[in-house]
Amino acid sequence: MNQFRALSFFILIVVATACSNNSDTATMSQPSHPIAIALHGGAGNIEKMNLSEEDKGRYLFVMDSALQIGYTVLQNGGTSTDAVEKVICALEDCPLFNAGKGAVFSHEGRNEMDAAIMNGSDLECGAVAGVRHVKNPIHGARTVMEQSKHILLYGAGAEEFLKKKNVEMVDTSYFYTTKRWEQLQKALEKNTNGLDHDENSGDNKYGTVGCVALDINGNLCAGTSTGGTVNKRYNRIGDSPLIGAGTYADNNTCAISCTGKGEDFMRLVAAHDISSQMKYKGLSLYDAINNTIQVSLKSIEGRGGCIGLDKAGNVVFSFTTSGMFRAGIDGKGAKTLSIY
Amino acid sequence: MNQFRALSFFILIVVATACSNNSDTATMSQPSHPIAIALHGGAGNIEKMNLSEEDKGRYLFVMDSALQIGYTVLQNGGTSTDAVEKVICALEDCPLFNAGKGAVFSHEGRNEMDAAIMNGSDLECGAVAGVRHVKNPIHGARTVMEQSKHILLYGAGAEEFLKKKNVEMVDTSYFYTTKRWEQLQKALEKNTNGLDHDENSGDNKYGTVGCVALDINGNLCAGTSTGGTVNKRYNRIGDSPLIGAGTYADNNTCAISCTGKGEDFMRLVAAHDISSQMKYKGLSLYDAINNTIQVSLKSIEGRGGCIGLDKAGNVVFSFTTSGMFRAGIDGKGAKTLSIY
Repeated sequence: MNQFRALSFFILIVVATACSNNSDTATMSQPSHPIAIALHGGAGNIEKMNLSEEDKGRYLFVMDSALQIGYTVLQNGGTSTDAVEKVICALEDCPLFNAGKGAVFSHEGRNEMDAAIMNGSDLECGAVAGVRHVKNPIHGARTVMEQSKHILLYGAGAEEFLKKKNVEMVDTSYFYTTKRWEQLQKALEKNTNGLDHDENSGDNKYGTVGCVALDINGNLCAGTSTGGTVNKRYNRIGDSPLIGAGTYADNNTCAISCTGKGEDFMRLVAAHDISSQMKYKGLSLYDAINNTIQVSLKSIEGRGGCIGLDKAGNVVFSFTTSGMFRAGIDGKGAKTLSIY
Repeated sequence: MNQFRALSFFILIVVATACSNNSDTATMSQPSHPIAIALHGGAGNIEKMNLSEEDKGRYLFVMDSALQIGYTVLQNGGTSTDAVEKVICALEDCPLFNAGKGAVFSHEGRNEMDAAIMNGSDLECGAVAGVRHVKNPIHGARTVMEQSKHILLYGAGAEEFLKKKNVEMVDTSYFYTTKRWEQLQKALEKNTNGLDHDENSGDNKYGTVGCVALDINGNLCAGTSTGGTVNKRYNRIGDSPLIGAGTYADNNTCAISCTGKGEDFMRLVAAHDISSQMKYKGLSLYDAINNTIQVSLKSIEGRGGCIGLDKAGNVVFSFTTSGMFRAGIDGKGAKTLSIY
């Protein structure tokens, strides 16, 4: 019930934020370049029978609200970097998704979070992995991108750097949710040998969140944030914080954020593979994503999906699972809000 | 002097190993596919005036010996994975290179080592980052590849996993060398604010080691191992352990190992970028590497280089620095052994 109250409170905040942003749209500047945005809240075995109408409504409401937050940034002439960060912060603050507040627990009962962000204009990027006290890991990733000469910082070292940059830290208890704790207990029961992660534990949904955006200056940005897999061990790092695997952006091609079984995306260097097909083969975003997700990923029995956005504002969603939480508004203003 | 004795001892071991391997060549099987191998010991500002004839001789001797160890594995019908692991183990065991025994020190006076290995036949790969007690990080990476469902494990978690798999651990004192400790002290003196790494510290050489190999079955393998950058902080992870950035292999294209300022290679997803140009644009290994290293890397003022090997046994070396320690034997038996 505590969790339910927390969720209701979160929804109120999202509505308030979205509303205050909506009021700004009266002063929005006229876009000089098509603007577009897309987000995902993870892919996986999301069967209709396992998702109540009430839960479905919550997911759709939160995704729609987060989408509007980002779109308003773009409508007001803000950067794609700001849009991506704000959208992902909103999803990280919501306990529904496996990132930030809703992050899953590791084998040892810890929340170890990963995030990355990349600008398509100059290929600048930043990422954190294995952080345990950073309230919004995507903000940590952006801070690494903008204030460090490095790209990927891990765990305690990453937090030491971010503290110096005044990034908000919270006690580990902030990330506790009953749902995720119970999910870990179930996973631990099944995983008696304890020698590796139990990837089939829990509800087999990959709740990573991600966002891609295109601003009025034609700049693309991509970001991804995750708690990783339930019952993960040995300080495993997945694809989300790895530039080229789970996250990539290049103004010449596209912005990509992936979700799914991270190792599959790492082997294919999936996000960069999509960009490379556009760059070197001249393929459209749709065809490039289709080849990487529906052909290559399937050929290694990989599970998951991605969202993609090109410089013309085309939005593409693709996944090999039964569902992917997703939303977007393309360059022509056409909106998507869907789960299955 | 201790270090000099250690090096002399190492050279004796290499000679002994190389000799014992050479004796096996009498029974070697006839290759059914061209075999080839290449290695690097890092790129950087290696000016002739800064490298004594004695030191030059040592580097060339160790590289030649390590190359022979790997080539003998291939001549005897061994796998490219075995060849890559053995070559990199030999280089890790030598205090001349920034990997394993010769790893640089972090800001806190620790050796934090990264390594990755990838098979081109099935895109299987494994990597470790931030390990402090693993005698041969490349062996740790191979163990992750072969005995874990995961690809990238960090620090204490990685070591917990590797201990369960009986991978050899050593006390941190094993990695101490006077040369590297003095290099850190110089870097610390220059870096008074302590807010970030001092990338211009030390002698501006990037001593990462790497190897690519092609075996008689036509299987490619790539591996890379490093101590990272002198005086690094905040648990920074570079490109070496990241699949697609510093290390990549795909039988359909090539095997690549990079060395240099890691962040530049991460932004370009350099190793995968080379592979993608061959796959999607039909370029030769030489042209693909030239585009990534001499055009793209230079365009972002990136520093470093790479070694590449394709399925036909062509070996390519490329770097933007004044030198790169390198050696190789291509598919036609032509040998390279060079520094500048």
